[in-house]
Amino acid sequence: MDHEDHADYASRLAQTRQRIADLGLDGLLIASQYNRRYLTGLTATDHDITESAGMALVTRGTFGLITSSFTLNGVEDEIKPSGAQPLLTDTDTGANVLARALSDEGGVRRLGFEKDWMSYATYARLRDALGEAVEFTPTDDIIELVRARKDPAELATIRRAADIANRAFAQLLQDIRIGMTEREIAALLERHMVALGADEPSFDTIVACGPGGAQPHWVPSDRAAQRGEPLLVDFGCRVDGYCSDLTRTVVIGEPDEKLREIYDVVRRAQDAGLAALAAGATRGREVDAAARQVIDEAGYGKEFMHSLGHGVGLAVHELPAVSRLRVSTPESEAELAKVEGIEPGVVVTNEPGIYITGWGGVRLEDMIYVGESGPEVLTDRNPQQIISIAG
Amino acid sequence: MDHEDHADYASRLAQTRQRIADLGLDGLLIASQYNRRYLTGLTATDHDITESAGMALVTRGTFGLITSSFTLNGVEDEIKPSGAQPLLTDTDTGANVLARALSDEGGVRRLGFEKDWMSYATYARLRDALGEAVEFTPTDDIIELVRARKDPAELATIRRAADIANRAFAQLLQDIRIGMTEREIAALLERHMVALGADEPSFDTIVACGPGGAQPHWVPSDRAAQRGEPLLVDFGCRVDGYCSDLTRTVVIGEPDEKLREIYDVVRRAQDAGLAALAAGATRGREVDAAARQVIDEAGYGKEFMHSLGHGVGLAVHELPAVSRLRVSTPESEAELAKVEGIEPGVVVTNEPGIYITGWGGVRLEDMIYVGESGPEVLTDRNPQQIISIAG
Repeated sequence: MDHEDHADYASRLAQTRQRIADLGLDGLLIASQYNRRYLTGLTATDHDITESAGMALVTRGTFGLITSSFTLNGVEDEIKPSGAQPLLTDTDTGANVLARALSDEGGVRRLGFEKDWMSYATYARLRDALGEAVEFTPTDDIIELVRARKDPAELATIRRAADIANRAFAQLLQDIRIGMTEREIAALLERHMVALGADEPSFDTIVACGPGGAQPHWVPSDRAAQRGEPLLVDFGCRVDGYCSDLTRTVVIGEPDEKLREIYDVVRRAQDAGLAALAAGATRGREVDAAARQVIDEAGYGKEFMHSLGHGVGLAVHELPAVSRLRVSTPESEAELAKVEGIEPGVVVTNEPGIYITGWGGVRLEDMIYVGESGPEVLTDRNPQQIISIAG
Repeated sequence: MDHEDHADYASRLAQTRQRIADLGLDGLLIASQYNRRYLTGLTATDHDITESAGMALVTRGTFGLITSSFTLNGVEDEIKPSGAQPLLTDTDTGANVLARALSDEGGVRRLGFEKDWMSYATYARLRDALGEAVEFTPTDDIIELVRARKDPAELATIRRAADIANRAFAQLLQDIRIGMTEREIAALLERHMVALGADEPSFDTIVACGPGGAQPHWVPSDRAAQRGEPLLVDFGCRVDGYCSDLTRTVVIGEPDEKLREIYDVVRRAQDAGLAALAAGATRGREVDAAARQVIDEAGYGKEFMHSLGHGVGLAVHELPAVSRLRVSTPESEAELAKVEGIEPGVVVTNEPGIYITGWGGVRLEDMIYVGESGPEVLTDRNPQQIISIAG
């Protein structure tokens, strides 16, 4: 059964309308593909900002999806459960369709738009079409903050995505042999995930054998796996739109002292992050700081140059932020404070890492659901000692 | 050998600088991931507009890549052939790094930015950082029009991408059996392309057995292939960044009269498009019109609701446009005229289709290189009669 059958669209819409009203807006134009799907159920994806499958419109009186028959033809049923009304652009521009919907409704003076998800060109086109009557107002994170707290149906879907990734990785461990290339290992893992029921990888799988792992976003190459190197695999899959995101670091043969030590530091940092959540941390920075302290104290602070984690859901990276304050200004402080709330219902990653140029990287990433009674790790945990495979 | 070893970065930069000067600008800030790669060689990809790996900056005195060590670490060699200078954002915001680079250079008063590829949020942040001294000016298609004409190294890479797709499809035809699902067929084809040397599919493979084909952007489902239905496959792969994009429609068993007739109309429309190119068409709309006329005359005009084609290169969809003028206003006329130039060096798709709700679709898509001496079809051509497979 699809996630969409259970989705509580009415609650999502009501929460969105409440937040719109709280901000003194009369409506919101939704450009993010994730927010569009969250509210309307439309599963179409946008691969580039220049190729959007449509925008959603939420005002007091309207809940619409501005799109074309080209997009909706054959998938009309996707948006039925949400009640989104198609506002079709078949015979007019999206800008004119929007302007007409607002003028038909009347009373929409301040219309928000998602400033991070709308191109300047689209902004300018819509602003001109709306004219003086509408104050077209940049907003951020209105729906992202609703999405941060997962409902039971969403959590169930995320569990499936995590479970498939777990099982696919267990299969991969049986397959890996010395001499297989990073690309081959990545392709194999992606195939396992799809065979186990995933729709697709949730992002391009990262496999780094040795030195490549020093680059956190390494793209798999034709380098072959060798004995004794850190073998880092960052992967996940999408199930009914929802993502998993995991990282494991293993070794073929026996780890040397350095690898053993670095793995241990990262694993203890992960414990510290989890412990901070169990102790009731309410801000992402507290969780980040707890893990970072372990790495700092081990002398690898500079080699852990990214955030500890992030929310996961319809997007691989979403709210809440689990990161440090990089630049300490009142503005950046306020910005982080707005998006780092750890509340019951959030799903976050816990992914400390240590990266050493010329040697490679160790990153360990699990997914954690923060429930009313504390954190629950949704993935198999990375074990306390590095997994050694025969190869 | 990688494409990047042959790329004529100096010519790309010189052409870009010429176009910047022609527009009365002192420089251009490049947000598109495709333009960024084209100029600098950086292969990093941006999956969402909110997660950019960096921007390129071109002025009279500067050719820079504004990015972080997080992105560049380990892949510094990618940008060496282009000569792009890293402008690192490790200890400051991208906006401040940009402002400092401009102020160090001096004399940059009008700085263009790519309005279709920059979010409103980024625009506003940069505009504020640049202040009064710089007129931050929206532009479009400056580099896209340079990219439209492929150089020999690019053409060679596109040939490889087309060739791999051709061979993968030939393998797929041996594999397809009645009862295989759309998803299984898509996964198989993608695996063949990767096994033959592709980096990845260039977009999510479309496989539609029967009714789904009525939706041009159908997402493969668990529907099983049945005898006698149109089986539409739209696919391609990426090799060293460059894309192929093909569509084939085949049938398991014998086609009935309707399928035979519709296939014939679409195939003749494709011939007409190709003939228009051979006759020296200089505007995309002429090519579109030639193919569309065949479909109109057969009575299926309303069932061909998309453009005939598009350029292909680093992006699956790029310039030139091969489409009709949808709304006839002086503005839209001027807009189309700017981007539809058919010049020697362009690579375009030729992809007429007929889509019938409840029945399915027939689309035939080949890739065509327009050389000095006329068009050359880069893909295997879709045959004159529909391919019937045993299944």
